[in-house]
Amino acid sequence: MSITSFTPPIRTLMGPGPSDIHPRVLAALSRPTLGHLDPEFIRMMDEMKQLLQYAFMTKNAMTIPISAPGSAGMECCFANLVEHGDKVMVCNNGVFGTRMLENVERCGGVPVVVEDAWGSPVELQKVEDALKAHPDTRIVAFVHAETATGARSDAQGIAALAKQRGALVIADTVTSLGGVALRVDEWGLDAVYSGSQKCLSCTPGLSPVTFGPAAVEKIKGRAKKVQSWFLDQTLVMGYWGSGQAKRAYHHTAPINALYGLHEALVMLQEEGLEAAWARHARNHGALKAGLEAMGLELPVALEARLPQLNVVRIPEGIEDAPVRTALLNEYSLEIGAGLGAGAGKVWRIGLMGHASQKKNVVLCLTALESVLGRMGASINPGVAVKAALQVYES
Amino acid sequence: MSITSFTPPIRTLMGPGPSDIHPRVLAALSRPTLGHLDPEFIRMMDEMKQLLQYAFMTKNAMTIPISAPGSAGMECCFANLVEHGDKVMVCNNGVFGTRMLENVERCGGVPVVVEDAWGSPVELQKVEDALKAHPDTRIVAFVHAETATGARSDAQGIAALAKQRGALVIADTVTSLGGVALRVDEWGLDAVYSGSQKCLSCTPGLSPVTFGPAAVEKIKGRAKKVQSWFLDQTLVMGYWGSGQAKRAYHHTAPINALYGLHEALVMLQEEGLEAAWARHARNHGALKAGLEAMGLELPVALEARLPQLNVVRIPEGIEDAPVRTALLNEYSLEIGAGLGAGAGKVWRIGLMGHASQKKNVVLCLTALESVLGRMGASINPGVAVKAALQVYES
Repeated sequence: MSITSFTPPIRTLMGPGPSDIHPRVLAALSRPTLGHLDPEFIRMMDEMKQLLQYAFMTKNAMTIPISAPGSAGMECCFANLVEHGDKVMVCNNGVFGTRMLENVERCGGVPVVVEDAWGSPVELQKVEDALKAHPDTRIVAFVHAETATGARSDAQGIAALAKQRGALVIADTVTSLGGVALRVDEWGLDAVYSGSQKCLSCTPGLSPVTFGPAAVEKIKGRAKKVQSWFLDQTLVMGYWGSGQAKRAYHHTAPINALYGLHEALVMLQEEGLEAAWARHARNHGALKAGLEAMGLELPVALEARLPQLNVVRIPEGIEDAPVRTALLNEYSLEIGAGLGAGAGKVWRIGLMGHASQKKNVVLCLTALESVLGRMGASINPGVAVKAALQVYES
Repeated sequence: MSITSFTPPIRTLMGPGPSDIHPRVLAALSRPTLGHLDPEFIRMMDEMKQLLQYAFMTKNAMTIPISAPGSAGMECCFANLVEHGDKVMVCNNGVFGTRMLENVERCGGVPVVVEDAWGSPVELQKVEDALKAHPDTRIVAFVHAETATGARSDAQGIAALAKQRGALVIADTVTSLGGVALRVDEWGLDAVYSGSQKCLSCTPGLSPVTFGPAAVEKIKGRAKKVQSWFLDQTLVMGYWGSGQAKRAYHHTAPINALYGLHEALVMLQEEGLEAAWARHARNHGALKAGLEAMGLELPVALEARLPQLNVVRIPEGIEDAPVRTALLNEYSLEIGAGLGAGAGKVWRIGLMGHASQKKNVVLCLTALESVLGRMGASINPGVAVKAALQVYES
């Protein structure tokens, strides 16, 4: 065996995440490593909490990045909040709702499922009816921005219904944080997790989470220990918590990965949260105009469409994989395949974080038009980029 | 709030980990991010598995890095292998044995504890007696290199006793992998976890694990699902496994962190595993000679002493924290505090991975002698470095 250093090609990442990473974030990753109890590192941890509070629009003290990917952030919320026998309502309209159900089951909760079609948002009436039928529901969980389908649900509306019935709210904001409006405190979301690699444009591997007062109270009142030692927030906060004379070692924090997230969040603060949302909306508008001018269809209803994740129907007679392979080989451009029920039927074009910029919109339209044309798709040639540019000029 | 980019100071890391990182590894972290299903990234994953098999000295197919720190690697082993009611013997001689007990309890196992004093290795006779008293033991777990105490246990001996009784073996090799002999297949270790940030000299945040055939069989035969979705190896291997037509998405892999581990493992392969063990032994010998010449005491018995983690008794009348603070402020040198029962009584001086080199040995001796002398410790001045250099010249 003789394996040499790995030199990755330079891609443009317009899939469902990871998104393109800004060079400032990549540079931060390679800064000198500190010990996880170094006073300078602890200072950075305090800044990190403030930066995450800004991004989540929350004052929650328990606002930290979990030292593992978004799926672990999801598990962290369920493992800490769900106790054996708790009735947990899961709004399921895609891959990540199904994953939530897996978590409820493995935590010993009793699931109640509110089903909506893939590509549709969660229907509030169904949630209201289900809560009426199950007044002993302890927790309502939903996905704000379904990465599998590109649909956005009404987080504020779902949370309001849950509150009326005294249930806690768990929200998956993996794909929404930094890309569309998300107001944790104003909307009353009790436990929220996200990912570093979507609209924050950091490398994958960290999961920002925030727990509000009602969630903290439920965790502290548990009859049994959290089943995961690694994700037990009562222990994790001994290291991340502030106001303590001394931080206790829990696990060794992923120092350099946290440098990257810190830098990505500093950049979000520099741009401004609202400005970042507006940028995602603007570039989405241009891409959408171009795709529709070309004759492609965006199946998600207009009012539920995520600007950062554009689901496009694969045209009649065109195969999925050869198109994506051609984009990768000829343009070093990654777009996403469909996931679950969408596999082979749709593509997922991400415009997340640093990837959400004009040059990526025109590159994607140009490359897609060229490849689809060559493969014999029935599209309108020569109009897509023009339609996109008109949006920027209007 | 206006927080700016974080610029860490440059430390020499001689604590219990993270250890100093080679610039090649830091540089690898900032290479362009790829998608987690990119063909080039998948090629790197296959190389990663081979490199880890080399480091662990195993042919196990299920040899991968968990996308989270060593504590999650520990939990991965217990969560996958321990079923409700399983009797699990834990050899407890430090902080990490205690953490194993937490895991057994949270997984619904029935713990049997074999206690040894802090700083002592696991006593084989006690394990043999305990197995005789509990012939229905399903799993025996122990820590190969106790990071809290600097003691090495006889992994081969413990595994042989467990095998005689038909029990599986879980071994914590967080601090041993790459620093001292570790032969997973030859010794018959069934489930093994480690960390990236010790003798592999990568940044913290990843946990290499390996599962042998008997462990895989127990996982596949489970009556109930693994309680952690994120750590369920039957799902994780759908992404990491080879020989499949198509890899299934499980979670988004921490791409850039994996670049770093790949580079660290390429460097280990270039040096050679046995050469790395010899280097750790040589630098330990020099540091030990210097510390003893100065008049400091290494409390761990000679035959159980870890070369990569040197536990030193704090001299009479000297306070712990001011010494470490002075080393940090004046020399930008980190050594470790005692952990648990060792807090305030010992220091832990790491010579791990890239940190295990001559220049660090002489820097540490010089700085420690200077600071201790100024603080009025009763030490022999002017002899430590000379004693260390004599070891290199012999």
